[in-house]
Amino acid sequence: MDISARIESAIQQAIAEGQAGSAPPRLAQALDYAVTPGGARIRPTICLHVALACGDDQPALADAAATAVELIHCASLVHDDMPCFDNADIRRGKPTVHKAYGEPLALLTGDSLIVAGFEVLARAAQHDPARAIELIKIIGTRTGMPYGICAGQGWESEDQVDLSAYHQAKTGALFIAATQMGAVAAGQAAEPWQELGARIGEAFQVADDLKDALCDAETIGKPAGQDEVNHRPSAVTELGVEGAIQRLKDVLSGAIESIPPCPGEAALAQMVRKTAERLMPASASVHAAE
Amino acid sequence: MDISARIESAIQQAIAEGQAGSAPPRLAQALDYAVTPGGARIRPTICLHVALACGDDQPALADAAATAVELIHCASLVHDDMPCFDNADIRRGKPTVHKAYGEPLALLTGDSLIVAGFEVLARAAQHDPARAIELIKIIGTRTGMPYGICAGQGWESEDQVDLSAYHQAKTGALFIAATQMGAVAAGQAAEPWQELGARIGEAFQVADDLKDALCDAETIGKPAGQDEVNHRPSAVTELGVEGAIQRLKDVLSGAIESIPPCPGEAALAQMVRKTAERLMPASASVHAAE
Repeated sequence: MDISARIESAIQQAIAEGQAGSAPPRLAQALDYAVTPGGARIRPTICLHVALACGDDQPALADAAATAVELIHCASLVHDDMPCFDNADIRRGKPTVHKAYGEPLALLTGDSLIVAGFEVLARAAQHDPARAIELIKIIGTRTGMPYGICAGQGWESEDQVDLSAYHQAKTGALFIAATQMGAVAAGQAAEPWQELGARIGEAFQVADDLKDALCDAETIGKPAGQDEVNHRPSAVTELGVEGAIQRLKDVLSGAIESIPPCPGEAALAQMVRKTAERLMPASASVHAAE
Repeated sequence: MDISARIESAIQQAIAEGQAGSAPPRLAQALDYAVTPGGARIRPTICLHVALACGDDQPALADAAATAVELIHCASLVHDDMPCFDNADIRRGKPTVHKAYGEPLALLTGDSLIVAGFEVLARAAQHDPARAIELIKIIGTRTGMPYGICAGQGWESEDQVDLSAYHQAKTGALFIAATQMGAVAAGQAAEPWQELGARIGEAFQVADDLKDALCDAETIGKPAGQDEVNHRPSAVTELGVEGAIQRLKDVLSGAIESIPPCPGEAALAQMVRKTAERLMPASASVHAAE
């Protein structure tokens, strides 16, 4: 099975577990609605690439790790889209969960997906309890407080923002989870894989800032120009467009250099390069060529 | 250390973990605000009583189990109080989290507390990985979909409600988690302890319905008469006040009968009886005596 098929199958299985038995039907539907269609599934793809680069000796654990990261990511999108945050009407080309199902079910969908992320790992513990516990610790750290995506979002309610902590938590956290969990699922230590995740996360943050500044809403599938509207810190505001493009290139080179020695090192570097190509907005390439 | 001191100490430690390092300060404060003052801490108290009745051979695991149940309970209160659900201004005699910190931080506080509930169990896994995995599975099942408190709340967005599934999930789930996790933390099987939790949960539901119908807002620390206002199913609507009081007594007798054989069986029955006395609203006792 290729990586994409593994991811979709594992996610569908996790959602089916949440819809079983006497589940309330609309919330059960909303769980599926929130995770499909899947977008690029970037985090679970990175997770499985790292697992494969490390030998992938326990594929069921790697699949569970990839699923957990994606379920938590989808949960964060559902909650972040709600009126008290971004108040977004459209996500991935269709109405956001609270627009389609109402705010109460959107809130519960996010909550249920967070829980499902932990459950999928606990179920996979039969394959290797010690690795499963380590995976649960990592996804917990990168989701909650003080270092996870909740912390990242929490910084947006502060008057004084610790920018480094903010970016590392808001965008970096789930990429760090992705690389570390891929390694741990395959029996490797987590720590050497933190930098790769952090740098990929930083690249995504800069690319997102560029897209927000340069693209229209149709291209990026959500309202554009939101950083300026909401006075959010942005690499474009800080460095200008050219500076942000150079930063993106530097960060991706750093990501490739940070890959720890492992059997699949070369293939993993190639994956990061491909990700980089996809990350660069078309209008940014024009800017860079000018 | 007595049970109450164990619970408060374990909860404070879990919250401190979430506030460490470079946490966003207001969200860090809100975590503490959401779990203190603690109310009766009924679920973790039941959890520790069951662990003690089963020998409590791993107190650190039992403390983690009790903490996890309470953190998830507090998370559900924070989210349920939000404007899209109960829109409550006051909880435990002080402003609700969204009133004190705003909706974005209330949403994130709930999310962070859910995550913290899983993290506290993962950290305690060093004492016994197999039991910790089992505890994580139980709290997951009783929090998320299809059988947890998320499912219970989800039923309130359905036109056709499966009343038994609704009550079991909405109120019963965390009491089942409390009894089962107390037993598992002490090395016993979970299954025989489900009925005790379910019956205590049912008793609380009936008592809550009675309080909502009979008491004023000041006595119960939240707006009264909400079941009628929101057309929620209620034992009082279904059976009348006298019928609901009789139901409460029957359910508590059943709870005591259901206690599995264990070293601390008698003490546990005494704890359930005491809980029953606290559950009966004063005005219901008057009704019952009339």
